[in-house]
Amino acid sequence: MNSPENICALALDVGGTNIRLAVVDQSGHIIARQQCNTSLSHIHASSDDQAETEILRILTSSIADILASHSHIHVIGVGFPGFFRQETGILVSSPNIPCLLDFPLAERLSDAVSLPVHVQNDATLAALGEFRFGIGRELKNLLHLTLGTGVGGGLILNGIPYLGENGMAVEIGHSCVVPNGRACGCGGSGCLETYASASGIVARYIETGHQDASNAEDVYRKALDGDMVAERILHEAGIYLGQAIAEAVKLLDVHNVSISGGLTGAWSFLSEPIRTSLNEKLIPPLKGKVRLHRSRLGDDTGLLGAAILALENGFRPVYVF
Amino acid sequence: MNSPENICALALDVGGTNIRLAVVDQSGHIIARQQCNTSLSHIHASSDDQAETEILRILTSSIADILASHSHIHVIGVGFPGFFRQETGILVSSPNIPCLLDFPLAERLSDAVSLPVHVQNDATLAALGEFRFGIGRELKNLLHLTLGTGVGGGLILNGIPYLGENGMAVEIGHSCVVPNGRACGCGGSGCLETYASASGIVARYIETGHQDASNAEDVYRKALDGDMVAERILHEAGIYLGQAIAEAVKLLDVHNVSISGGLTGAWSFLSEPIRTSLNEKLIPPLKGKVRLHRSRLGDDTGLLGAAILALENGFRPVYVF
Repeated sequence: MNSPENICALALDVGGTNIRLAVVDQSGHIIARQQCNTSLSHIHASSDDQAETEILRILTSSIADILASHSHIHVIGVGFPGFFRQETGILVSSPNIPCLLDFPLAERLSDAVSLPVHVQNDATLAALGEFRFGIGRELKNLLHLTLGTGVGGGLILNGIPYLGENGMAVEIGHSCVVPNGRACGCGGSGCLETYASASGIVARYIETGHQDASNAEDVYRKALDGDMVAERILHEAGIYLGQAIAEAVKLLDVHNVSISGGLTGAWSFLSEPIRTSLNEKLIPPLKGKVRLHRSRLGDDTGLLGAAILALENGFRPVYVF
Repeated sequence: MNSPENICALALDVGGTNIRLAVVDQSGHIIARQQCNTSLSHIHASSDDQAETEILRILTSSIADILASHSHIHVIGVGFPGFFRQETGILVSSPNIPCLLDFPLAERLSDAVSLPVHVQNDATLAALGEFRFGIGRELKNLLHLTLGTGVGGGLILNGIPYLGENGMAVEIGHSCVVPNGRACGCGGSGCLETYASASGIVARYIETGHQDASNAEDVYRKALDGDMVAERILHEAGIYLGQAIAEAVKLLDVHNVSISGGLTGAWSFLSEPIRTSLNEKLIPPLKGKVRLHRSRLGDDTGLLGAAILALENGFRPVYVF
């Protein structure tokens, strides 16, 4: 029989372009990891039944291998791009799969793999991971942004993830930074995500007539090589990030902001414009008070948050509001 | 000796143009009220010492009369336009009196009038008053806006006022609604307050060449009389309010928003554009979910919040974060 020290969680971070998995122990150490180049964007379901079947198939097949080789996994935590009804694991809705509403994802996945499963919004879990194992270790409150295919946000208040009334809090990727600006998948326009996500940056670069960038890393490399257009697009992403963070800070009055995700690889182009526009847009008593941090955990914030959710929800509930 | 039922608070709401006072019992009933047409704008201090003396003189003189005629006042609560260090009663800073920093307002006023004094941000107290005695009575969470000389905001989460790390939360009056828009007293531009406060509305009306409006009520009356410019300015105030509320809801995910203050007198011009732009700017799963309420308490939200602060802080602390 396993002693409590041997208990591990299997953490999943379901992203826009891939699914990342990790076996995590109770101290937050990643023991093993795996990546599946399959994602929710592969789901082309015409009905909610079909979408449910597809999601469960994708998740269980990505889980199967790692479960077979790690016998000490007792619980699963999943970060998923969608809105959840508090701590129930019921997916209220997901921008990626619009036909899916009120789907008991945690319960169905648990039935399929015969282990306890806890699910929560991916960006909320990234904030929790960063708070416990990264920048937030000595803090009480933290605003966290994830720069990936989209822009996500999570908020920790007094050590507790703030979920909002419908699990939709900190949708900072849909903060409007340019009135009547770029069209967003949410139906709105001028959302931060259309300027400061990996997909937004590539789209903006290609729109200038440059066809030779297939991802944000390409744009970053071009900027490093002195491509002025690539540089300007990254600079503007930073300006808009600073602007959106300033608006959030004027409402939340939290003084530490961290950013994780693949796009932080371009930190040398992003950090200065973020800091400049953030400070410019704050009210006088807040100017100079907000600390901006690049995540120490790279892309692992979401995985670690999913592991915390899994390991702690088995013992005590950590979520309020 | 007074029984607990007889204990009353003296509540003060220190506004941009006047100071309102009320004697409030423990059920939230206003027993007596008074208004002083003096305000912080009368303070022209060249030094912090002089400003401190002036504030105490203004507040104690406004209190003196009412104290003399109401012997059952045991505690004083003050809503003040400034930022306070949590529940200490120390004024960190006030936009109205920039030279004043870290002033122990509650303590000094208490010494001056020989009664316990509790002080907090005016808009936070308005939110608390509305939550306990108005719209919020059956709610858990509430975002509240005050439309007066400026635009203030307060947030109640799980029944508790959210103050932020430096007592500066919900500065929604300084949400940017028009990039590079109207210059604001905060040093920024395009702040909601410059379009949707009483002072902003009058300023915008006068700028059109109409010199015959001295306050927002004049503009409202002209709109009622069919003045298209007055109507447009009120309509736009509503649009910008809806826009700023949408941005706040995308971050906070609270589903009830109330508005109090003198400018709600123009509700017939404001409500429809607020609702329209609010719904337009929300992300799809939030559309139609946010309820907008005109305060049931008129201008008394701040006074009632100040009374709650006074009556409850004497017994148990109500503020966290």
